[in-house]
Amino acid sequence: MFRERMNADEAGELFLKAFAPLSDTENLPIEDCDGRIIAENITAGIDVPQYRRAAMDGFAVRAGDTLGAGGNSSVVLKLAMAVQKGTCARVHTGSPIPDGADAVVMLEDAVLRGESVEIFAQLHPGKNVGETGEDIRKGEIILKEGKILRPCDIAVLAALGIRNIAVFRKPLVVVIPTGEELVSRESTSLREGEVYETNGLMAALYVRKWGGIPRLLEIVEDDPEKIKDAISSNLDADMFITSGGTSVGKRDYVPGVVGSMGTLLVHGVGISPGKPTALGIINGKPVVCMPGYPVAGIVALYFFARAALRKLGHIPDESDRKVRAVLSGKIPGRTGYKTFARVKLETPYLNTGSKAIPLAVSGAGILSSVSKADGFVIIPENVEGYDKGEEVEVVLIE
Amino acid sequence: MFRERMNADEAGELFLKAFAPLSDTENLPIEDCDGRIIAENITAGIDVPQYRRAAMDGFAVRAGDTLGAGGNSSVVLKLAMAVQKGTCARVHTGSPIPDGADAVVMLEDAVLRGESVEIFAQLHPGKNVGETGEDIRKGEIILKEGKILRPCDIAVLAALGIRNIAVFRKPLVVVIPTGEELVSRESTSLREGEVYETNGLMAALYVRKWGGIPRLLEIVEDDPEKIKDAISSNLDADMFITSGGTSVGKRDYVPGVVGSMGTLLVHGVGISPGKPTALGIINGKPVVCMPGYPVAGIVALYFFARAALRKLGHIPDESDRKVRAVLSGKIPGRTGYKTFARVKLETPYLNTGSKAIPLAVSGAGILSSVSKADGFVIIPENVEGYDKGEEVEVVLIE
Repeated sequence: MFRERMNADEAGELFLKAFAPLSDTENLPIEDCDGRIIAENITAGIDVPQYRRAAMDGFAVRAGDTLGAGGNSSVVLKLAMAVQKGTCARVHTGSPIPDGADAVVMLEDAVLRGESVEIFAQLHPGKNVGETGEDIRKGEIILKEGKILRPCDIAVLAALGIRNIAVFRKPLVVVIPTGEELVSRESTSLREGEVYETNGLMAALYVRKWGGIPRLLEIVEDDPEKIKDAISSNLDADMFITSGGTSVGKRDYVPGVVGSMGTLLVHGVGISPGKPTALGIINGKPVVCMPGYPVAGIVALYFFARAALRKLGHIPDESDRKVRAVLSGKIPGRTGYKTFARVKLETPYLNTGSKAIPLAVSGAGILSSVSKADGFVIIPENVEGYDKGEEVEVVLIE
Repeated sequence: MFRERMNADEAGELFLKAFAPLSDTENLPIEDCDGRIIAENITAGIDVPQYRRAAMDGFAVRAGDTLGAGGNSSVVLKLAMAVQKGTCARVHTGSPIPDGADAVVMLEDAVLRGESVEIFAQLHPGKNVGETGEDIRKGEIILKEGKILRPCDIAVLAALGIRNIAVFRKPLVVVIPTGEELVSRESTSLREGEVYETNGLMAALYVRKWGGIPRLLEIVEDDPEKIKDAISSNLDADMFITSGGTSVGKRDYVPGVVGSMGTLLVHGVGISPGKPTALGIINGKPVVCMPGYPVAGIVALYFFARAALRKLGHIPDESDRKVRAVLSGKIPGRTGYKTFARVKLETPYLNTGSKAIPLAVSGAGILSSVSKADGFVIIPENVEGYDKGEEVEVVLIE
């Protein structure tokens, strides 16, 4: 039977404390590392740039030679390849500055007259000169272990001439849909009492989106031995997600199986929908048991599976996409539960000021209500609800 | 030479008006459609569920038979397979409800005694019964053209037994890095005056992240003919991004080439950094010319290339990931420019209340300043800047 209902945050904490992140890494070409988590500190092996460079198109000069030049007066320097007293050299943005030079006159402040350049600005040494290592200094730690790599970070690695780096391995997540009413997408029609499997597919796609590698198994019947077998034959997994069979009915075997193969930490959580969620550990690996009801299932995925995946894969907590919106109707909370109320935005993608329309739906069984929703308004355990006209934060459903 | 500096929003509007979205679609298995844009309205071909289902584990009954039952009084019904006056049948959450029944008694309100069930609740017809089509009604339009598909939407398609759908083709974006100082990542060392190519790689990775297919070309020299050739030999592209050669120097040929092959719409934009950005159209296809300076380049990507990609690919404007933070120092704007100031967050991923530390960097040439930044604070054209202690919105750099 159901255990006591546990507070959602406490359940999350208990669960996340019970397993360790993956330690193994893989070495990949940098261009394949967008969104991956770097598993080593990266120290710059070279200066970037490796030479003094012009910050402007113009003429490299000795600053001393421009003394007295200005809007109304000029100095004239001879155009040359090398720069010494009395000469200057053509430079382009980013090109090396010849040895003798210590400043660059902008094109706008110079007039080329045959072999000579008339200069109308007085420069101080260093003007328009990018020093060696001004971008990245050799020996500097430029990226730290645990950082999520963005294209701009990969560009920095490229600037250093680094071609491969170590990133943490992606967690392999085995997804096990259970339920004898389920049939696979391969079936072309349904008999009475049958529904197409959707939760397992949804879980697998969220796993992929959130940085894991999903392995979606075939549908397993409501039979403890078969559920056990499905887990035992996939012990290479880093995490398990089951769907269905978590309630109090005669056919709800999943939490029992988790308990018999490992530790059932939590069964019954203060999230609404999602109360029948169960959490456990098998062979040191986290197991999230989604309720079969699809809305409850997605809440369990967002609240527990994503957090577990992030811990396993060293993935930092990214802030959710959120907008602020004004409720067009009341949404009730449920005392003792963190309530995930689905809302539709009148103007999606408006960051603020859109209307949030509560989706009046009866139950956790209405999958289409999630698809119609743009996001969740999360009502804390101790809040009675939000009123029409209140401004709320909407966590967009990815 | 440079055209007049154009206001950033005007430039964007002019540019986006000048080309049309892609019209072609592809048909894909639903499990490959996460993040894709649906290219047709989807009408439900079946009811979901196709039968009346139990919303609870318990016993299916005729509601009339429970008249008078309650906490202190009970009625006794005979357990049977079919439900008629005086009998009830065992049902599980989600299982079909036998024909004669019109309500389900929860397990908690019933006690099984041998072949009989004692019932302690009076039910109204429909109690704990999910009607046929309660989730999705046959004939209902369940997903509309232009919607970005999320895992929960794909689950809805699966529930309908739909296995393939039409989505808009991903735009093919040809990325052309230009500049004779550039060398490819394949080089194991740099000579004086050389730097590794980074902007093209960064642009290609952002294109992929934002829903396009990048084709990153080899580095092209600063030679108008060679730039022209690179474009001409890739006219299967839906969009072009060039990097470098957009300034006023002798070697800055890119905007001229765009003008000679098509229309140069904009050269010089009020974004800082990023003023030398150029925008044009070749063969009806958008061309974004990123300045060679990497920070200017990324601003041009975020501001123009992403918008163009979204328009081409029918991708809705997703709201950015944003946080609110308090500035730990002043950041100056630049009159007439939309200024993209890089900031580091003291506590990244905190949604509000973190300190935003302005990155004091001299110029647009410092790639590492983007990698060190968590996001941009965008200062509008008519704002002088933001002061230390002000709360600002930080657009996180993906």
